[in-house]
Amino acid sequence: MINTTTNSPIKALMFDVFGTLVDWRSSVASHAQSLLGDKFNIDWLAFADAWRDQYQPSMQKVRSGEIPFSSLDHLHLINLNKIIQDFSLKGIDELTKKNLNLAWHKLDGWSDTQEGLQRLRKKFITAPCSNGNISIMVDLARHNHIHWDAILGSEIAGNYKPNPIVYKASVKALGLNPDEVMMVAAHSSDLKAAAEQGLKTAFITRALEHGPLGSKNNAQAETKALTPVDYSANDLNDLAQQLGC
Amino acid sequence: MINTTTNSPIKALMFDVFGTLVDWRSSVASHAQSLLGDKFNIDWLAFADAWRDQYQPSMQKVRSGEIPFSSLDHLHLINLNKIIQDFSLKGIDELTKKNLNLAWHKLDGWSDTQEGLQRLRKKFITAPCSNGNISIMVDLARHNHIHWDAILGSEIAGNYKPNPIVYKASVKALGLNPDEVMMVAAHSSDLKAAAEQGLKTAFITRALEHGPLGSKNNAQAETKALTPVDYSANDLNDLAQQLGC
Repeated sequence: MINTTTNSPIKALMFDVFGTLVDWRSSVASHAQSLLGDKFNIDWLAFADAWRDQYQPSMQKVRSGEIPFSSLDHLHLINLNKIIQDFSLKGIDELTKKNLNLAWHKLDGWSDTQEGLQRLRKKFITAPCSNGNISIMVDLARHNHIHWDAILGSEIAGNYKPNPIVYKASVKALGLNPDEVMMVAAHSSDLKAAAEQGLKTAFITRALEHGPLGSKNNAQAETKALTPVDYSANDLNDLAQQLGC
Repeated sequence: MINTTTNSPIKALMFDVFGTLVDWRSSVASHAQSLLGDKFNIDWLAFADAWRDQYQPSMQKVRSGEIPFSSLDHLHLINLNKIIQDFSLKGIDELTKKNLNLAWHKLDGWSDTQEGLQRLRKKFITAPCSNGNISIMVDLARHNHIHWDAILGSEIAGNYKPNPIVYKASVKALGLNPDEVMMVAAHSSDLKAAAEQGLKTAFITRALEHGPLGSKNNAQAETKALTPVDYSANDLNDLAQQLGC
């Protein structure tokens, strides 16, 4: 589906990160197993899925105003305490929890992420517009050799996507009009919310976000956009090619 | 003067930008002359000095609460309108003013800036902690081939240095303790304010910030720190060497 937005030239690309640029699921599972695998024998992919399941509900409390904004690092830690109980992982000390929480700072990029972003940055300003806080983004960029022009998203907006303020604050920080910025994501809900704020949109297929069989709780990757978009690409190199990079 | 802060290892360096990393004075003078030199014959360095003279008073209105936070781009434009009158530059249209205001997005780095920052980034997280807004920092980094890990400073804090919130918000965004971050600047007032928030400090001599003779209004560069600092360096390469980069 192709959107019918304006003809303004695109000057900047803003990226969703978890799932779109990095493989959170196998990275978190691997990190948790390396820290706890000697003591506990559980399904670490299910552990990663369960941790991620708490993601939207915890941010919804901020979006609804039930709790004030706090960073994703903080929400991740609260959520970790919950799933540690759910998986009956007993006796984990606070330092280990803190190290476990850093799993989200060390997620591996998809195979095309580094090269694709390098190509796209030659022509466009590039920045994450993620729900991850700035220090997560700093560490992920270092880990995956990404050169961002700026780090935008939830922390500069004080709220979480898909709240409109996150897209608006991020576009404003670039000093651009919304139709000069394209949101790039593997999730239609993110792109739909961005389009509603006047941004252009690009869908990236990430068929393996929830693993080859889907997650333990039947979450499935989107294989195509479920909302009108301006571009649809198989990966970042495909997007770069479509954009003439 | 050497400060006596803690022994925590430094993990991140935050940089003042105007004056410390880029030569705002000759760059602004050159940019203004290239846009207006055909129509007006004035001292363009004096024009740059006069524009910069409005910098602190305009930010002070935000710091004091007299006006709400607005970006430095916005303040620069207000200040430009004032000095255009002071210099009797008549008949400048709004588009030309907007282009003039972009002078602050195209400032040239000092000769050591690119290499020095590259060296320092190998060992430390590096980010500007400037009063410039994010889009100024994005454009300056592109213009001078700087790779920042994040863009911190006034816009994420909603206030201007040396208000403590700017240092605190910037350190918090990195997920670090204040004593794990070092502020790098050519201005003692900036370093003093950072030290008061627990940051480490490095002074860089920028003898030519106000030109070889000082500015038209007798502003003089600081040739040494006027407040206790942890490091004092002739330029960024000297700092890199002192820090073992």
